[in-house]
Amino acid sequence: MAHLTYGMIGGGKDAFIGAVHRIAAALDHQAALGAGALSSTPQRSRESGAALGLHPDRCYPSWRDMLQGELARPAHDRVAFVVIVTPNHAHFEPAREFAAAGFHVVLDKPMVLDSAQASDLVRTVHAAGTVFAVTYNYSGYPLVKHARHMVRAGEIGRVRKVIVEYHQGWLATHLEASGQKQAAWRTDPSRSGLGGAIGDIGSHAEQLVSYVTGLELEAICADLTAFVPGRKLDDDASLLLRFRGGARGILSASQIQIGHENDLSLRVYGETGSLLWRQEEPNVLVHRPLGQPDRLLRRGNPYLCPEAQAATRLPPGHPEAFLEAFANIYRGALAAMRREPSLLDFPTVEDGARGVRFIERTVASAASNAKWTPF
Amino acid sequence: MAHLTYGMIGGGKDAFIGAVHRIAAALDHQAALGAGALSSTPQRSRESGAALGLHPDRCYPSWRDMLQGELARPAHDRVAFVVIVTPNHAHFEPAREFAAAGFHVVLDKPMVLDSAQASDLVRTVHAAGTVFAVTYNYSGYPLVKHARHMVRAGEIGRVRKVIVEYHQGWLATHLEASGQKQAAWRTDPSRSGLGGAIGDIGSHAEQLVSYVTGLELEAICADLTAFVPGRKLDDDASLLLRFRGGARGILSASQIQIGHENDLSLRVYGETGSLLWRQEEPNVLVHRPLGQPDRLLRRGNPYLCPEAQAATRLPPGHPEAFLEAFANIYRGALAAMRREPSLLDFPTVEDGARGVRFIERTVASAASNAKWTPF
Amino acid sequence: MAHLTYGMIGGGKDAFIGAVHRIAAALDHQAALGAGALSSTPQRSRESGAALGLHPDRCYPSWRDMLQGELARPAHDRVAFVVIVTPNHAHFEPAREFAAAGFHVVLDKPMVLDSAQASDLVRTVHAAGTVFAVTYNYSGYPLVKHARHMVRAGEIGRVRKVIVEYHQGWLATHLEASGQKQAAWRTDPSRSGLGGAIGDIGSHAEQLVSYVTGLELEAICADLTAFVPGRKLDDDASLLLRFRGGARGILSASQIQIGHENDLSLRVYGETGSLLWRQEEPNVLVHRPLGQPDRLLRRGNPYLCPEAQAATRLPPGHPEAFLEAFANIYRGALAAMRREPSLLDFPTVEDGARGVRFIERTVASAASNAKWTPF
Amino acid sequence: MAHLTYGMIGGGKDAFIGAVHRIAAALDHQAALGAGALSSTPQRSRESGAALGLHPDRCYPSWRDMLQGELARPAHDRVAFVVIVTPNHAHFEPAREFAAAGFHVVLDKPMVLDSAQASDLVRTVHAAGTVFAVTYNYSGYPLVKHARHMVRAGEIGRVRKVIVEYHQGWLATHLEASGQKQAAWRTDPSRSGLGGAIGDIGSHAEQLVSYVTGLELEAICADLTAFVPGRKLDDDASLLLRFRGGARGILSASQIQIGHENDLSLRVYGETGSLLWRQEEPNVLVHRPLGQPDRLLRRGNPYLCPEAQAATRLPPGHPEAFLEAFANIYRGALAAMRREPSLLDFPTVEDGARGVRFIERTVASAASNAKWTPF
Repeated sequence: MAHLTYGMIGGGKDAFIGAVHRIAAALDHQAALGAGALSSTPQRSRESGAALGLHPDRCYPSWRDMLQGELARPAHDRVAFVVIVTPNHAHFEPAREFAAAGFHVVLDKPMVLDSAQASDLVRTVHAAGTVFAVTYNYSGYPLVKHARHMVRAGEIGRVRKVIVEYHQGWLATHLEASGQKQAAWRTDPSRSGLGGAIGDIGSHAEQLVSYVTGLELEAICADLTAFVPGRKLDDDASLLLRFRGGARGILSASQIQIGHENDLSLRVYGETGSLLWRQEEPNVLVHRPLGQPDRLLRRGNPYLCPEAQAATRLPPGHPEAFLEAFANIYRGALAAMRREPSLLDFPTVEDGARGVRFIERTVASAASNAKWTPF
Repeated sequence: MAHLTYGMIGGGKDAFIGAVHRIAAALDHQAALGAGALSSTPQRSRESGAALGLHPDRCYPSWRDMLQGELARPAHDRVAFVVIVTPNHAHFEPAREFAAAGFHVVLDKPMVLDSAQASDLVRTVHAAGTVFAVTYNYSGYPLVKHARHMVRAGEIGRVRKVIVEYHQGWLATHLEASGQKQAAWRTDPSRSGLGGAIGDIGSHAEQLVSYVTGLELEAICADLTAFVPGRKLDDDASLLLRFRGGARGILSASQIQIGHENDLSLRVYGETGSLLWRQEEPNVLVHRPLGQPDRLLRRGNPYLCPEAQAATRLPPGHPEAFLEAFANIYRGALAAMRREPSLLDFPTVEDGARGVRFIERTVASAASNAKWTPF
Repeated sequence: MAHLTYGMIGGGKDAFIGAVHRIAAALDHQAALGAGALSSTPQRSRESGAALGLHPDRCYPSWRDMLQGELARPAHDRVAFVVIVTPNHAHFEPAREFAAAGFHVVLDKPMVLDSAQASDLVRTVHAAGTVFAVTYNYSGYPLVKHARHMVRAGEIGRVRKVIVEYHQGWLATHLEASGQKQAAWRTDPSRSGLGGAIGDIGSHAEQLVSYVTGLELEAICADLTAFVPGRKLDDDASLLLRFRGGARGILSASQIQIGHENDLSLRVYGETGSLLWRQEEPNVLVHRPLGQPDRLLRRGNPYLCPEAQAATRLPPGHPEAFLEAFANIYRGALAAMRREPSLLDFPTVEDGARGVRFIERTVASAASNAKWTPF
Repeated sequence: MAHLTYGMIGGGKDAFIGAVHRIAAALDHQAALGAGALSSTPQRSRESGAALGLHPDRCYPSWRDMLQGELARPAHDRVAFVVIVTPNHAHFEPAREFAAAGFHVVLDKPMVLDSAQASDLVRTVHAAGTVFAVTYNYSGYPLVKHARHMVRAGEIGRVRKVIVEYHQGWLATHLEASGQKQAAWRTDPSRSGLGGAIGDIGSHAEQLVSYVTGLELEAICADLTAFVPGRKLDDDASLLLRFRGGARGILSASQIQIGHENDLSLRVYGETGSLLWRQEEPNVLVHRPLGQPDRLLRRGNPYLCPEAQAATRLPPGHPEAFLEAFANIYRGALAAMRREPSLLDFPTVEDGARGVRFIERTVASAASNAKWTPF
């Protein structure tokens, strides 16, 4: 299994998610960083690249330089894919250009700023025929895959209700005023887009519901609030959901709920049972069948579906967590790049487009006096 | 401390809540059952009364007979109060008549069927000057009282967001078709009133929020669903809440969420901390202060407020539960009847009236296309 | 179902367990306090009796006076049984004399101070043919009864290993020096007997193992420690256990483990599954079958055994706790006194005698250099 | 920060722990596999090496060949260290020879088969002046490091009692008879050494206690059992512990406790508080101070000690787990190899020697009729 080499756009010093991607890509010894346009200035890009051991020739001052530079190399010596981990406003152009030039792309969510960009990207990727993965990383967890399997297999019956929560507390104060880099761009409409909490974390919640249940949104009713004085984007989102076919739901995404760190949870209620999964205790899935004792399913056991087993590296009781789940997205995408079969899936450009639409429709609903905004 | 004697209306064979009231009333050796109109037929009332050891003279065939019969006894030998535990449609008349006749009343929730009845009852009780308690029993828990204390004392700062859930699964199937008595009346509009889940348990959720936070509802946005085919009332309620002063909330009440038994939980998020309490683990209150480790406060400890300590009978680690909390409502009401001071409060006729209005406004919102229905 | 009347010995002001017994006896409306020798001085006995609403004629200055006084009353107007809740050193004489005189007895654990007393009591009770219950209250919990059922039914296979812990922290400081009444007598050999923690709580742990598993101790290896300077009895006990038939065990009982309140837990490991129960979360029993997901069994559900259902008053999710379990011991004993059939058992004088022997043998083991002290 | 290259001994196909080491070594982009003697036969070694992308020249048929081969390369092009992940009986010789030849060594636990080997190895390593790390990986967890910090800082006072448990259930059946490779060697005295469960997992428990508390064992009292018929080594170990200075403890290590997967937990009780940590929920540390609410400390927060923060890669709520903790051992050892300062420590050859002695003394105690076997 040959290593694939990638270039990274963004992810320099002080970035959080860039380091996560680098570990995730490397975890299974399948991919290696080979080039980078890591920071917003040429000088910082060089420094960041040097710190990561990149050859100076491949520490590019900008992503456009990287595109040119890599295309100028012999085909066998180019990066196979790029990883884009910039703030949201800087996703679209490099994603589009690299895909159009035939590179595979791994892109952070939310994919782009609006549905026009999303549609363009979908077309571009289809035309190019390349692999395009959007890192909705939470669907990489083994027990999320098993939950999806159980719903599909009818093990909880037809789904009636979904409650998805993504609760954090780190923006309960006016942190962006302190200059904290993560807070600054995520609360800035010019870099983050239309959505604050709804974009940053609500979009994960939407994807998790879609991934596990397969339900399609029909209409939403949203209340968005910016609780912290001076904040320009929502830091709290409460939504009622209606799905095609009659299921109902609640989505709560908040970054001012003190005491929650990264508390994404999903509850799915069917006609014959329910499921509960929490990201902060990812190695257990609670299945509650009608009229019987609750069951705790644990990662790594033979009673799980093949996809969940394929997504696991360690035996039961040796906990796996965030990085391994993130790496599973990479494993799926890398298999696709190599045109190898894999039990591991990954979110695609269509998932990304749906997520962008979700943010748009939520913001529209929040501004509307009508109860239901069609999705 | 003299025993007070009470008469019970409803609560005969097969009733659930009547037995709960009798235990709760007796738990602290302060009140004893002395009379009853326990069932809907004279014959069954006699049988139920005999089974409970009532003197045949005070096994009344109907509540009207009990009212007459007790009034015919010398004042010192009458029941001091009545406990009304009939289905909802049979609350108003006996409550009104006993209160008007000078008896104290303990009444199950929801208090009455509509706001007209509620207003009448409020006026009647005020005119009579009697004690009137509505058994929103969950506010009887010691740690609910401490949560209220903490919010009032500013220990989590100004409240921003509330999430209250009351989840059950026992009506996930068409249980009423089986003749199960509890299911039958609770899903029957003629006995239960406008609300199904929203009335039966949503009203508890509303009261818990009000009790702990003191927040006043400004507007609601409700989605009510009857998931089980053939069901005449909602079995699932999802609400967005807006409170005066800017706080926001989510209320979820459902009786089709398989795996939940009686899962009432409250989460309150303030500017400097949050609180979490769950009825099924009532001996712990989670306090999560900003920037510090979570704290688990446990019932019975000296660090709790006087009200929480007054509501406790056992040392820490010797768990107390549903019946003790229920009995705390009685202790408060009985102290009021005796005109003795007490640290234990109890829900009043005004709380009951607000609860009835909550059900009405929720049903109105569910029928409306407007996003927000004023409260 | 007629009320039975009882007399209480001990349990006056400041006592903890007397009030628990009175609530437990009354909870199911089956027994009422009718007489008392409640305190160690006649004056305090009168005051305590008056506070509890006893008739002055039956507020006896001592248990001997109560014995004479009640025997002097017509047979139909005597107390049916006595409840003895004095410190341990004052158990034997009243228990023996009341039983010999034909009264039923409910007695706190540990039953008496040594095996000579225990044997005497066993003989006395057998001769008298009366009911004699020892309030090892933890076996009154519904899910403890279900655990016992599962073990007997072979649902976890032959038992290999048991871990029982009873952890408290309230004696982590020299509390007895403060005059705190509970601490004072429990750490005083002249009132408590040979054992400190091992007698006060270790004896509960021993009984719980015996009740659930039916295993018989073969040999023990004990390490007893008094960690708090100046303490005269052990406040920490660690034991290795060997049972007849090859099972092994660990028993840990401590009153200096800060952070534990009343943390009694039992884990039983068989050849095909295991069970876990914790007193502080008594409404759930964890069953872990070999090779399958864990199962959480919850009180009140139809899938539980008849004994567990008989021991339950409330539906699932309406938590029951310490007092209800305690009351179940009374229900069983009261049924026996009435010679009525009951699914509810209660610990007998033989259980009490085995418990006394357990304390003796543990203290002997702690003083021995031999690894194993036969039981 | 230059990559270090290592050679691996053992860890070929079907091995569990070899893959763990390779991920752990690579996780922080600091070390790369460069050579291997991966399997017990030359043919399998070549295949395993090829699968891992090793150059054929450095797929050695045996560790002796690897030692010769690497020494034959120019100094700058040799592996910097070796990782030994063979069964226990094959630890001593390669560890000794590579250390003596000046290579750093990372070795799985238990270090060697007996104290004679251990002493030899200690002397060899001291003479060579090389880095020697024993992968007691659980001390790599951030919150284990914080627990150690709290004990050292006196935050729970002088330690009185320790309870350490390492519970698994995977050997509850005669799995070794099925040919399962992990079970086969771990239950075989000729490959595993004197200890079964006590060696495989009890040794981790001993190290965890030592690491966190700094307590030194004075005497032990052990009961070892082989519950599964036909098993040649203990699969269950129960120990009473006495430490210098008066602290007491209980150690339970079992591989037949069905329902436990890899359930290592540590509870430490001091004079003013206690600590609880569980490997299966590694992102929380429970601190229970005397007389105050419990506190839940979570990984990644600024209130943790510098060592705990240095051992963390992700923000709070983004769970880290087994692999990250394992990688922290590598980070510490790699820093030592580079002679760079680091906040991350790692278990040394002395820790390994103490662990070997612990197994020996436990086995001796189990065979003795004396209660206490000096350590």
